[in-house]
Formats: sequence, structure tokens, C-alpha cells
Amino acid sequence: MSERLEALRVDEARLREDFAALAAIGPTPEGGVDRPALGPAHSAARRWFLERAGQAGLETHVDAAGNHSAVLRCGPRGAPTLLLGSHLDSVPQGGRFDGALGVLAALEVLRTVRASGLSLPVHLEAIDFTDEEGYWVGLLGSRALAGRLTPDLLTNPRGGREQFLRALAAAGLDEGALASARRDPAGLAGYLELHIEQGRRLVEQGVSIGIVSAIVGIRSLRVHFLGRADHAGTISMEERRDAGLGACALALAARTLVMRDFPGSVVNVGDMRFEPGAYNVIPGRVSVALEFRAFRAAELDRLEATLRQQAAATAGQFGLGLEVESLPGEEPVELPAQVQEVLARACRGLGLLYAVLPSWAGHDGQAMVWACPGGMVFVPSVDGASHTAREFSHWEDCVNGANVLLRAALLWAQECAAGPVGQKGPAVVQ
Amino acid sequence: MSERLEALRVDEARLREDFAALAAIGPTPEGGVDRPALGPAHSAARRWFLERAGQAGLETHVDAAGNHSAVLRCGPRGAPTLLLGSHLDSVPQGGRFDGALGVLAALEVLRTVRASGLSLPVHLEAIDFTDEEGYWVGLLGSRALAGRLTPDLLTNPRGGREQFLRALAAAGLDEGALASARRDPAGLAGYLELHIEQGRRLVEQGVSIGIVSAIVGIRSLRVHFLGRADHAGTISMEERRDAGLGACALALAARTLVMRDFPGSVVNVGDMRFEPGAYNVIPGRVSVALEFRAFRAAELDRLEATLRQQAAATAGQFGLGLEVESLPGEEPVELPAQVQEVLARACRGLGLLYAVLPSWAGHDGQAMVWACPGGMVFVPSVDGASHTAREFSHWEDCVNGANVLLRAALLWAQECAAGPVGQKGPAVVQ
Repeated sequence: MSERLEALRVDEARLREDFAALAAIGPTPEGGVDRPALGPAHSAARRWFLERAGQAGLETHVDAAGNHSAVLRCGPRGAPTLLLGSHLDSVPQGGRFDGALGVLAALEVLRTVRASGLSLPVHLEAIDFTDEEGYWVGLLGSRALAGRLTPDLLTNPRGGREQFLRALAAAGLDEGALASARRDPAGLAGYLELHIEQGRRLVEQGVSIGIVSAIVGIRSLRVHFLGRADHAGTISMEERRDAGLGACALALAARTLVMRDFPGSVVNVGDMRFEPGAYNVIPGRVSVALEFRAFRAAELDRLEATLRQQAAATAGQFGLGLEVESLPGEEPVELPAQVQEVLARACRGLGLLYAVLPSWAGHDGQAMVWACPGGMVFVPSVDGASHTAREFSHWEDCVNGANVLLRAALLWAQECAAGPVGQKGPAVVQ
Repeated sequence: MSERLEALRVDEARLREDFAALAAIGPTPEGGVDRPALGPAHSAARRWFLERAGQAGLETHVDAAGNHSAVLRCGPRGAPTLLLGSHLDSVPQGGRFDGALGVLAALEVLRTVRASGLSLPVHLEAIDFTDEEGYWVGLLGSRALAGRLTPDLLTNPRGGREQFLRALAAAGLDEGALASARRDPAGLAGYLELHIEQGRRLVEQGVSIGIVSAIVGIRSLRVHFLGRADHAGTISMEERRDAGLGACALALAARTLVMRDFPGSVVNVGDMRFEPGAYNVIPGRVSVALEFRAFRAAELDRLEATLRQQAAATAGQFGLGLEVESLPGEEPVELPAQVQEVLARACRGLGLLYAVLPSWAGHDGQAMVWACPGGMVFVPSVDGASHTAREFSHWEDCVNGANVLLRAALLWAQECAAGPVGQKGPAVVQ
């Protein structure tokens, strides 16, 4: 790597200014952001991103899946594109860093390379993927781009089918055209993403950078317990068919089972909906939002079977009916060792301590590895707080992460001149 | 009782026609009604009631608490009024009979007496009370009429304070004026209500009519468990502070405690609200709608203390914070023996088998007994279904109930000529 390239750094002040401007879109009283995918705040953030890119002299582009891109044509005609990205949507009442940092750092890398006047063997593209958080369909944008958006994924969106179609229309998107955002893998050199760790492991190890070795597999079930809505006074305790009891017993049992029998895996009951939902009516129907994660597909299968058995046993215990719906999930994947090595060289070149670790959080890289080699860089999360307004990473770490992204992109581009980096195609962990 | 009075019966066909017309206001796909207090369907039902009363040549009146009345001035100038009533609001997704039957039967009694041309020692009033079901403030209308509507009851309505004020305004009501609906007890001869049983006891005993001896006391608590909203993947199971676990453990423990230590009392968790409420976020705050009922005030106190202790223990077990709010409740009351005897004579006169039983459901009579003597008549509920679209009473039983109401009103009116019937003032069961 030339001395000139080695000296390149992102513009900290410009990155910080962008960070503050973006955090002001969809702000919450607690200091976080509320930008569910396709909602008004999310759309406003995306418009802001394209404006900033345009001001920086970059091409801008929105594809049929709503992915928003800034493009720097710094490679020769017909060169493949190295994608750098993340997402601007947040979970409800989320934090300022999750996704946002990666998009801003990608934009900053493009501006830095453009200002340097460098020519590379690849084009660079900073991309903001649609609905990474799965407010509707997890990884919608990256799945579409990687050719992994099948019609069945769209039939049962988490937020409800009608609401999803309304949200797509409001964002100017057409359900039937979403999958046409697929890109030809031949045109993709690879994918790199900077993200906050969202856990405590980097802080505990005292390192500045995490290099991601694998991404967790995620499944979710919508579990409905069916009882009998009755008067909460006149029916004796013995005669009630209270759907809430099944839901509550499942939530408690799921935790116990995972902690006892599935070390390293996790489970969450993130929501319950009681119907009709009144003080003086016995719940007739309770719907449970159940999510679980593991690093091996076989473990996910075993965990799902166990949770389904538990739900059936719980329903039986309280005399309830049961309906279980499977929602779209993510397979666990490994990230290519060659890309991990590029990231490690970037860290060493910058004098930064790093650790290699898996990700318990899902990421767009999980979909992208089906189309091109992918890599991920983590920066430490204070207290591991994530999906909350308390989410925080030290600014120095964020800047270090952006510089690792810049340097890794330049190293990867150099290597591309000698041939493709990392294997393509699925790397699911069985 | 004269032969002419003994021969009086309500007009079955007219009552049935009214019943069908009212059930068509706010109908649900399941065959019930959805008429939460002060909402559009509820207001439409009340307008319909006044129209029907006007068509029957009755005076109509709406008081400052929104109570809707039809009045038959069949007594001498200055005579007290015997109130016959119930309510037209329903729980969300409720049934067609609860409340509606009592208001329609009261209206039918007035029409029958008017058509007979009888003069009585009392005036008759058919009244539809506001928010019996407590969508906002339980027994709001009857409390106001009985002088039991204190300002503190209005500060924490179940459906939320701002929503309550908007609903009042939409119904043309002024919060500050609600209590002015109070009536001078000297002008009230008494209160009679026909209602469905909402339980299985009458069917099990094979009788047509229930005469209510006492009404259950009801309290409710809004219990908030406070955890930490975090990423559902990256935080280990051991480190989570999941507010849902506390809520679920409380719901299960409350049932066990009541069934073991409080025979005859009941408890219900009718709703839970998870915040932020997403598959991939650990619940940071869960609010539990907890209601419990007993026939003695001392038992209610003991039950409340036990449930509060349990909530605290559960919060401690899962490392959660706890906030408990008390919502307006109802004291348990006994109904006067002399009014029960009037109802028993009416049943005997009509040749109907009856049983005397307490009510596990709250009723407007609970508030009314603080202003005047009160009595209640139950008709059997098939399968005990209530607060659901499955609510059903055989038409023959409904007509029998309306005739008991008519005959009891006439008997009571006769007795009023000889002096007040039943004691006035509180009859709380300690």
C-alpha cells in the first residue's frame, strides 16, 4: 500500500456533523431515535442521506426495493462495485448508532476517496438497506439485492400485511417489483459493513475493533393461545379458559429451557397482544411474539421443535387452543476468512487492537454473503446497550471504525486487481 | 293487587323488535356488539333510545353525566320517582344482552303502564347509565346520580386521561359538571334493574329468575414492571432485565394464590402492554391490568395486600423495578331484604321459580344503593357466557324478566303509598 493511501483518514468533523444531523431525524425524548422502516421519520432520514451525497458530488440512486445509494465511479469502465453500507431504519424507540453509523461511515469513505482523487480497480457504493430491523420483513433490502427475496417472505410481515402494503405505497414502492432490485453478482466485488457491536464483549476484552467471524441465525414464531373471552367476575376460577395463562407460562418456560439446554442460544418474548384486552374480560386470545437465535442451523431446528412442544404442552395444561405461525428467519452464516484477513490487516496498519468474534445480532451481511463475499467491523458498545435510547459508542471508537472501513476498502480494492477476494455463495453453518 | 294490575304484561313483540334494532347498533362480525362508553356506537345507541321513548309519548332527558332517561309522570305532583334502568354501553367486543336488556325492559314497562292509563303513587323513569362497564370510570353515571362521583375518580380513567377528556367532549359532556347530575335522595323512591346473570348458577339450579342479595366488591391495579429494553440477541440470557418475566410470573402466581387462599374470590389479568413491543427487543416495561373481586371489604383488603406483595416479590426475583397504581373500585354491598321480598312476590305472582344469589358482576345498583333502596333481577345466561359475542339468554327468560320488573315496580309503587320501602344509605359488607 502506498504511503499516500496509508495516510488517508476520514474527516472526523464532517462525520460528526452528519451524525448529529441524522440523530435529529425521528428523535425520542429519551435521546434515541424512532425510525421504523418506511415510516415518515425513516423516509426523512433517507432523503437527508441522498441530499448529503449529492452535495458531496456523488451519484445517487434508489432501487426497486427502496435501497438508497451514493455511488463513486472511481474504477475503470465495467469494474465491479465494492458495497459499503448499513441501514437508516431503527427499531421502535431505538438508538442513534445502530445502522446509522455504518451508512454515515460509508458515505464518509466515498467522500474521502473522492477528495483524494484516487483511481481504484473497483467502484465504491455507500448503501442504505431497507428494513434491516424487520419492522416488516427483516433484511428486506439486502435480501432483494442478493436475490433472496422470495414471495412467501412478503405474505406475513411482522407488522401486518395490510399495514405493510400501505407503508410500501407511502414510500413509493411496489410489492411486485421489490425482487427486481436483485443485482448481478458478477458486478459485485464484495460488501463491507461497520456497525456497533450491540454487546459487551469488546469492552470486556479491552479492544477497539471487532472482526465478525459469523452471524447468528434467527427465527421467529407468532404463537396464538385461544381461550374463551368471558366475564371476569361471574365465571369461577376453575372454569376459566384464560388465554393469558398459556402465554405467560410459555414465556417463563422458554427462558428456563434455553438457559438449561441451549447454551449460547437466546430466546425473547418481545410482545404479547391480549384480546379483547380489558380489565373485566378474561383474555380470549393472546398472541405472543417469540424470537430465538443460534449459530448452527441444526441447533435452530432443535430449539424451534422444543419451543413448539412447550407451547403445545402449555396450551394443554390450561385447556387452550393453539396456533403457531412461522415468520421469515435468517440462516446462520460464516463470513469468508480472506475478508476477515483484509480487515485484520487494516487494523494492524492503523495500530488498533482487534478481536475476532461472532455476531448475536442479525445484519444485512447475512443476506449479502449469498451474492458476494462480505465482512463486518464492530466498534464497542458501552454497557452493551442496543435497541434502546441508551445505546452509545465512544466517538473515538466510531472514528476508528470508519478508518478501518476506509483502509479495508482500499486494501480489498488493491487485492481485487489480482482476482476475487473471498468465496462467493452460501456459507450456512449446519 | 287488583286483577287489572295482575293481568298486565309487557308487549313481547315490541320488546323483541327493540332488541333487534339495538343489537344492530355497533354490531361485531361474531354477532355481538362493540359499544365502549362515549364512543360513536354507544352514542348512536343512546340517540336511538331517546327516539324510541319519544315515539312512545314519554318525556326524555339527558343529565350532566350523560345519563339518558325516559320519564312517565304517572304519580301525583311531588311524588318520588322509581328508577328502572341499566346501561347501553358494552365492553369491547361484548354481547347483545348485557345492559341492553335492562334498558329495553325498563322502557317497555313505562310503555305498558302508560298504555294502561294507570295512576301510581310514584313517577317511573327508565334510565340508561353512562359507562357502567368502566371503559373509563366504572359506574360513572350511577355514581354521579347517587352523589358518589368524587374528583379523584376522574384523574386516572382506565382508558387514559387525555382520551377520556376527548371522549367526554365528543359526547358533549363537561368533566367539571359531571357531579352535578346528583339527584336529591328525597325524590327517589328506589331503583330496580333487570340484567342477565352472566354466570351459570341459574341454569344449574333450573330456575327462571335470580333475585340478587349482594353485589361483589371490585378493585383494580395497573402494575408496571420496569426492566431494561435491550437487543434481544446480543445480551446474554443471564444479563437480561426482562420486564415481561415479572408480568408473566405475577399473572400465574395471582391465579394460584386466589384459588388456594381466597375461595369465592376471583382475579383476572385482562391485558398486558409490552414496551417497546418488538420481536427483537427485550421488553423494557410491561403494564399489567389486574382486577380482583370479593364479597367482603376486609377480604378485598387482604387480597389486595397479597397481590401487591406478590408483585413486589416477582419484581425482586427478576431484578425489575415496580410501580403500582390503584384504579377506582367498587365496595361490596348488600341489597335491602324488603326489596328482595317485593321481587319474590312478583315472581310468585307470575308463577316463576326463582333463586336468591349474590352477583359476581358489578352493577349500577352498587352505586345507587348509596342514594335509595335498590333491587336486581337476573335472567339465566346460557353457558354463563358474558362480555363476549357468545352471550345469550333465551327469549322466554328475557320476557319473564321484563314481566318481573313490571310487576315488582307496580308492587313497590303500591307499598310506597304506605311509606318508604327498604333502608336508605350504605350497606357495605365489612
